[in-house]
Amino acid sequence: MKNEFKKIGLWGRLSEDNVAAPALQISRHLKKRGLEVYAAKTARAKDRLVGVERIAVGSLAAKVDLLVAIGGDGNMLRAARRVAGHNVPLLGVNRGRLGFLTDISPEAMLDTIDAILAGNYLAEERQMLEATIVEENGTKRSMPALNDVVLQKGDSGRIIEFTTAVDGSYVNTHGGDGLIVSTATGSTAYALSCGGPIIQPDVDALVMIPICPHTLSDRPLVLRGSSDIEVRLEKGQGYLGHVACDGEELGRIDETATLRVSAAASRVTFLHPRDYNYYELLRSKLNWGRTNRTGK
Amino acid sequence: MKNEFKKIGLWGRLSEDNVAAPALQISRHLKKRGLEVYAAKTARAKDRLVGVERIAVGSLAAKVDLLVAIGGDGNMLRAARRVAGHNVPLLGVNRGRLGFLTDISPEAMLDTIDAILAGNYLAEERQMLEATIVEENGTKRSMPALNDVVLQKGDSGRIIEFTTAVDGSYVNTHGGDGLIVSTATGSTAYALSCGGPIIQPDVDALVMIPICPHTLSDRPLVLRGSSDIEVRLEKGQGYLGHVACDGEELGRIDETATLRVSAAASRVTFLHPRDYNYYELLRSKLNWGRTNRTGK
Amino acid sequence: MKNEFKKIGLWGRLSEDNVAAPALQISRHLKKRGLEVYAAKTARAKDRLVGVERIAVGSLAAKVDLLVAIGGDGNMLRAARRVAGHNVPLLGVNRGRLGFLTDISPEAMLDTIDAILAGNYLAEERQMLEATIVEENGTKRSMPALNDVVLQKGDSGRIIEFTTAVDGSYVNTHGGDGLIVSTATGSTAYALSCGGPIIQPDVDALVMIPICPHTLSDRPLVLRGSSDIEVRLEKGQGYLGHVACDGEELGRIDETATLRVSAAASRVTFLHPRDYNYYELLRSKLNWGRTNRTGK
Amino acid sequence: MKNEFKKIGLWGRLSEDNVAAPALQISRHLKKRGLEVYAAKTARAKDRLVGVERIAVGSLAAKVDLLVAIGGDGNMLRAARRVAGHNVPLLGVNRGRLGFLTDISPEAMLDTIDAILAGNYLAEERQMLEATIVEENGTKRSMPALNDVVLQKGDSGRIIEFTTAVDGSYVNTHGGDGLIVSTATGSTAYALSCGGPIIQPDVDALVMIPICPHTLSDRPLVLRGSSDIEVRLEKGQGYLGHVACDGEELGRIDETATLRVSAAASRVTFLHPRDYNYYELLRSKLNWGRTNRTGK
Repeated sequence: MKNEFKKIGLWGRLSEDNVAAPALQISRHLKKRGLEVYAAKTARAKDRLVGVERIAVGSLAAKVDLLVAIGGDGNMLRAARRVAGHNVPLLGVNRGRLGFLTDISPEAMLDTIDAILAGNYLAEERQMLEATIVEENGTKRSMPALNDVVLQKGDSGRIIEFTTAVDGSYVNTHGGDGLIVSTATGSTAYALSCGGPIIQPDVDALVMIPICPHTLSDRPLVLRGSSDIEVRLEKGQGYLGHVACDGEELGRIDETATLRVSAAASRVTFLHPRDYNYYELLRSKLNWGRTNRTGK
Repeated sequence: MKNEFKKIGLWGRLSEDNVAAPALQISRHLKKRGLEVYAAKTARAKDRLVGVERIAVGSLAAKVDLLVAIGGDGNMLRAARRVAGHNVPLLGVNRGRLGFLTDISPEAMLDTIDAILAGNYLAEERQMLEATIVEENGTKRSMPALNDVVLQKGDSGRIIEFTTAVDGSYVNTHGGDGLIVSTATGSTAYALSCGGPIIQPDVDALVMIPICPHTLSDRPLVLRGSSDIEVRLEKGQGYLGHVACDGEELGRIDETATLRVSAAASRVTFLHPRDYNYYELLRSKLNWGRTNRTGK
Repeated sequence: MKNEFKKIGLWGRLSEDNVAAPALQISRHLKKRGLEVYAAKTARAKDRLVGVERIAVGSLAAKVDLLVAIGGDGNMLRAARRVAGHNVPLLGVNRGRLGFLTDISPEAMLDTIDAILAGNYLAEERQMLEATIVEENGTKRSMPALNDVVLQKGDSGRIIEFTTAVDGSYVNTHGGDGLIVSTATGSTAYALSCGGPIIQPDVDALVMIPICPHTLSDRPLVLRGSSDIEVRLEKGQGYLGHVACDGEELGRIDETATLRVSAAASRVTFLHPRDYNYYELLRSKLNWGRTNRTGK
Repeated sequence: MKNEFKKIGLWGRLSEDNVAAPALQISRHLKKRGLEVYAAKTARAKDRLVGVERIAVGSLAAKVDLLVAIGGDGNMLRAARRVAGHNVPLLGVNRGRLGFLTDISPEAMLDTIDAILAGNYLAEERQMLEATIVEENGTKRSMPALNDVVLQKGDSGRIIEFTTAVDGSYVNTHGGDGLIVSTATGSTAYALSCGGPIIQPDVDALVMIPICPHTLSDRPLVLRGSSDIEVRLEKGQGYLGHVACDGEELGRIDETATLRVSAAASRVTFLHPRDYNYYELLRSKLNWGRTNRTGK
């Protein structure tokens, strides 16, 4: 990560007005300060982000020193996969609704950006995963993930059975709707809906969570962050599964393929304002303390 | 239940100002309408509920045609146990914070009472339970419950093991922190915290929920409302358990005693305004739809 | 249901040896007793069930007085959907591995059948569901279900959002992987994997269970058995869902269609031997009491 | 930990025959090999462990190079708390029923001991916790724990409300039956019954698990192993709680006291045979793969 941020990228669905408007504000603000501003070329006809240099989406991460993602957590996940391996930190601006990853409100964004440009910020590294489908013939397809790698049963709706191994050791044969391998970051997303624990981002751990498992004692398993996980569908049943990284399709597997999940070679860095508080975010997003259910 | 309400009881912690104030309002309102108003004698020196005839708490249910409970759900539970067997309907007024059972706000209470006196209301019957501890020598102690009968491990914090039987048939031997037998009404209270389902009040059912069970497949079991349940601590381990009805201690059991739970002989009737909506209450109390957790 | 069983159908995957063998045994046994035996015509070339009159699968339920299903619980579910509305009781023979629905072992099957023919049995009625997809233009597709009607997110793996209504009243807007509407019978199947309670078959109830819900307080909801449930995908998001009855595809829905689920007009009757014990089945299938996890 | 084991302690309930018998076998075997064998003096009159030097229980850990614990997991927990800080490794022998911590069967114990004496073993370090109750006046009581530190509601059965802080930062205000702080080792014990994840022992993490929490989004939180946790009962409600370490009472707290939990200064070392397999243990203890529940 560079010490100085001179070239700043803007990331988000610029064709949507509630993204383009704050993007434009940020762009003008940065240019006044003499900084270079970039955004990805889009197929969409026009957006309101005038006066910003457009470059191919594949070249953006190599070009900039800092990427400001404007949108929801999904937008931030796409940005993270895009900067993976480029050592470009991310700043997440929400559009009025706080996200787990987009912790800067539109109201606070210009002040936060000024503070960051002045070197006044918290930098937080988050682990990413790399999912690889290895076909029988050796063909490989890979994709990074910041939240989770998810194997899900195919279109038929039939449950799948699959074996898991960690660092080469057989763990279990599972039956159910699938499996999540989640980072700490992803532990508050889909993983939480499937019964996983919340993992504080500074814990060096992954969690492997069976989805709607047949066996009720088949519970979430927290592993070291450096674990290598292998998943294979049981043979002879015609099982098919989908693999997705942060919700984006990586591919399908059948009984002849292997899904490997392990820590990605590089991490992503999030920048936060100095007063960032992880627990405050949890309390806000999970409605902690706001419940009004009464007991006796 | 009588068709006309002439004698109206007020129920709640009258020594607390935020109960006494609405009680006084209601009392004046009812007296203006020429109705008789009663409340229980209390040991506490004074309260603000002047001009209301006080009678012994044990005689109140026999005296009145309608009991207005002011307070939280706990207060309503106590009122329900008090009117059990007396055929006196209940109206629940909250003190600013909606409860599952106290669905009338202070702002709406006078209008609601007028509507009820005019015969314009919904009457809803709720099942109650009767818990009985039967000692080895035949001694029995019983208590009604509107929400739940709870067996919990004793003071040592050691788990207990116990067997359950339904209508004379052995069900299971459980190990853990205890057991809840909950009505539909209680299904949104402690039972919900222990993994039980929400049971709509018009379903003729009970649910038996192991508390933090040792065996992960030991799941909540929904039974007919007329089921007779027997619980016994395993012998030879020195186990001790506490039994409570709606949170009020019924007594302790050891391996020589039996806990019996079954439907109480009579039901309690709640009065609601015409626009009462059970699902709206659920949505409000459980923060449904208000979550702001984001996915992808 | 007839009082006398003279025409007996055999149901199962007769092309599989471990089904055909017991079917043949049963067939010979019944013929010796002078009874008529029927099975469905199958496309498969040959099976070992010689000497049994074959009729079209669609006519079998109308022809017989009793259907003996040989196989697993899935086979029994198909048999139940087949006899729905025909008033033909079912007997479930497993192939060596006890099922929730197939409680007769191959060893005990001939004796059990003799007992049943002698009128010595327990008859147990189970509620069935009817799922209907109603298209915008009024087109309807329906299918019965004994276990459950399941709405699941489409192939994209994207979560779906949908509203539920019971007897015309709006209940909730859910986000997640889908929804199960399960009978008491289905409560020990997929519903249990998704956090639902076990519902004893004699309880007149359904349960509506969100699958991996976004909102953690979106819990299973137990309803009266006669409830009419409506489910609709949220509009404007391009959501697609699959609907299946007992795992068999009924069809897809998009935001213009409505899924209706309610009690089927007729019930299915299971025959059990006199010593049938529901709790014993639960204990066996759920490994109750067999856990060897130790505490302190 | 010493490289050579010359003085070996035996630990367990020697007054019970099924502990004394294997202890005697081990003792004879070790003496034949010329090693010194020790056990704790017991108040109980006699046991069958003749010919073994008895020393005060408080001096045992300082005396021996290796402690062989015979019994269940509870016995092993007591042994671990006893050797805490003494750098004495533990070997766990079960009495015929495999434990999570006692992985050596009576049949294999002599061979395993020989292998260990020959230096042929796996040594595995496990984190321990230190729980401290700090009174208002500064008084402190502390106890180590290998599995968990548990705060539970007092005898009244009333729920408690309490705040948690991690490394000085406020986390949440919880309402419910209590809180578990569990190590990876404890994650398969009480923590698992309360909805916690399984944490592989080589992960540097703790988990904080609310017991039957009022708020359904109050989920297990996985923290770094070095976290300092503070728990305080809410003021003004008269709350009382019990604190136990591995099930052994540390003391009571009220609103004026603080419970602190953090990593103990020293770890405990378990010795395992070379073919020790953590996943095999999980599969065996959790009945993985042995379920016979069937789906469709």
